[in-house]
Amino acid sequence: MGGDHAPSEIVKGALAASGEKIAEVVLVGDENAIAPVLGTSSSIEIVHTPISIDMHESPSTVLRRKKDSSMNRAFELLKTGAVQGVVSAGNSGAFMAFAIFTLGRIPGIERPAIITTHPTMKGGKSLLLDAGGNVDCRPSHLVQFAIMGSVFARYALGIEAPRVGLLSNGEEETKGNELTRETHGILKNFDLNYVGYVEGTELYNGLIDVVVTDGFVGNVALKASEGIAELILSLVKAEILDGSPANEPGHGALTAAFNDLARRVDYSEYGGVPLLGVDGVSIICHGKSDSRAIKNAIARAKGLVGNGLNEHIKNAIQHYSHPNRTKEQ
Amino acid sequence: MGGDHAPSEIVKGALAASGEKIAEVVLVGDENAIAPVLGTSSSIEIVHTPISIDMHESPSTVLRRKKDSSMNRAFELLKTGAVQGVVSAGNSGAFMAFAIFTLGRIPGIERPAIITTHPTMKGGKSLLLDAGGNVDCRPSHLVQFAIMGSVFARYALGIEAPRVGLLSNGEEETKGNELTRETHGILKNFDLNYVGYVEGTELYNGLIDVVVTDGFVGNVALKASEGIAELILSLVKAEILDGSPANEPGHGALTAAFNDLARRVDYSEYGGVPLLGVDGVSIICHGKSDSRAIKNAIARAKGLVGNGLNEHIKNAIQHYSHPNRTKEQ
Repeated sequence: MGGDHAPSEIVKGALAASGEKIAEVVLVGDENAIAPVLGTSSSIEIVHTPISIDMHESPSTVLRRKKDSSMNRAFELLKTGAVQGVVSAGNSGAFMAFAIFTLGRIPGIERPAIITTHPTMKGGKSLLLDAGGNVDCRPSHLVQFAIMGSVFARYALGIEAPRVGLLSNGEEETKGNELTRETHGILKNFDLNYVGYVEGTELYNGLIDVVVTDGFVGNVALKASEGIAELILSLVKAEILDGSPANEPGHGALTAAFNDLARRVDYSEYGGVPLLGVDGVSIICHGKSDSRAIKNAIARAKGLVGNGLNEHIKNAIQHYSHPNRTKEQ
Repeated sequence: MGGDHAPSEIVKGALAASGEKIAEVVLVGDENAIAPVLGTSSSIEIVHTPISIDMHESPSTVLRRKKDSSMNRAFELLKTGAVQGVVSAGNSGAFMAFAIFTLGRIPGIERPAIITTHPTMKGGKSLLLDAGGNVDCRPSHLVQFAIMGSVFARYALGIEAPRVGLLSNGEEETKGNELTRETHGILKNFDLNYVGYVEGTELYNGLIDVVVTDGFVGNVALKASEGIAELILSLVKAEILDGSPANEPGHGALTAAFNDLARRVDYSEYGGVPLLGVDGVSIICHGKSDSRAIKNAIARAKGLVGNGLNEHIKNAIQHYSHPNRTKEQ
């Protein structure tokens, strides 16, 4: 029931995922709104609840008043093992609140974090966390983000020894702020493949696999990237494509190349972002998600369940909480 | 003597600025290195000093040992009124240190800040400060940045009532971190055209004139922007230009359009960034600056002297330090 195009695009995405045998999908929400879109030929199960969460409700309000909402019902199905993952395009603050409240945090994780995936110059992908709302972090939070990001890169992207960097205003140890300096002091003694401080450019140059920062800085970095990407793509369209008349040979190929390019830097292409550190696979999608984004998010959830991400995070957090697991020992 | 291409590109830039009557230029540095590039036909004065600053020397070291360096000599010329502005492509930490040490800060400014200029979707420009090294700021620092940025937008860009925003992880008042929340509480009672929290996208969408943040977040936002800009431009080149054979009609026009585009998002186009809050016009250029960037920086310094930026900042800081200058009164 969440997102700008719910329930129709959500249901269509579920139908596509089900039709392509990506996963067995359960839809949670108002049966009266869902059933007409679903039609009669589908075997997708609906778990009915008429209550849903508005995009503007605060996490504290929904925790008090919306425990019977479709979003929390979905997490309850995950908690009891009836499903193995949850995907939603709803209110992201409510999503984090109910994920933590209902699933609980993985032991040793103080704050769950949202991880985003980015294209790079080398053709591979890089990851950033926290892209969520964890502002005013402590060093222990960033250390846990580094561990979770490294595990995610290894098991979800198949990178053997992911290079982990701490986002800073320069690469030298003399740079950084109070938070990064203290975090750096801890991480450099860990047996992670920690490379030290990295700059904002390294989100996209392909030299770093996991970029760690707090949710305030992470959000600013991603939104600034989104802003200049839109600016450049609009300039490309105006200066390059519009300079090439539609009846000129090659114009069609140029337009196709442009559309391909625009898609490659579009975050929604990746189909939702995982919330790491809660006890179960949880994917939050952009409110604007269309059926393709929802289908991709379902596929992503299926993948993370299949590679046992949650268990790997649990094991890693235990490993690093052991005092002997540092380079110094 | 500062920068990767010193002294030759610096001298050539000075020659160009002098030749185009942009300003009367004085070169400070090693006469033996400068004179051969300058030639005999120019009337540009050289103030000789053999001592220069290495790119890797720390601000504290240069303050102790390099008071006779060409960089500090230039600031001394400004302090005594022999020149009206200083331009350098040297060590930026040393530049800030000597600017503060020799020129002094404008009364009421705790921390001078670097301001950068950006292209926007609307065709105009936006400003960001601090893009320098002021990490771990207090609210009073950000408030002073907001005042200086507003004055700069008004007198250097000619914007009558510049829209000032505080960079945050969302526009709602419930967003932000401890620093932004406290700063917001102060700024919203000022008679600046303060619009509240803005997101990273608003660096480029043309809806905000001045984006205020600390130097850590500012650096991350700019470097992330630079990273994705390079990525997209490389993809444009690979997918769009290389898809158009060189012998095809229109290929030359496409390449020209691409080069124009690349230049429009290149920060060096703006020719150096001003350090605001020290008592004199001071422009720091990228270490990679070529003669064109140096010439542009000299033109920029000349412009800021001409519109009396320094006096306007002094007046504004006095104005806002008066307790009656808030909306509430």
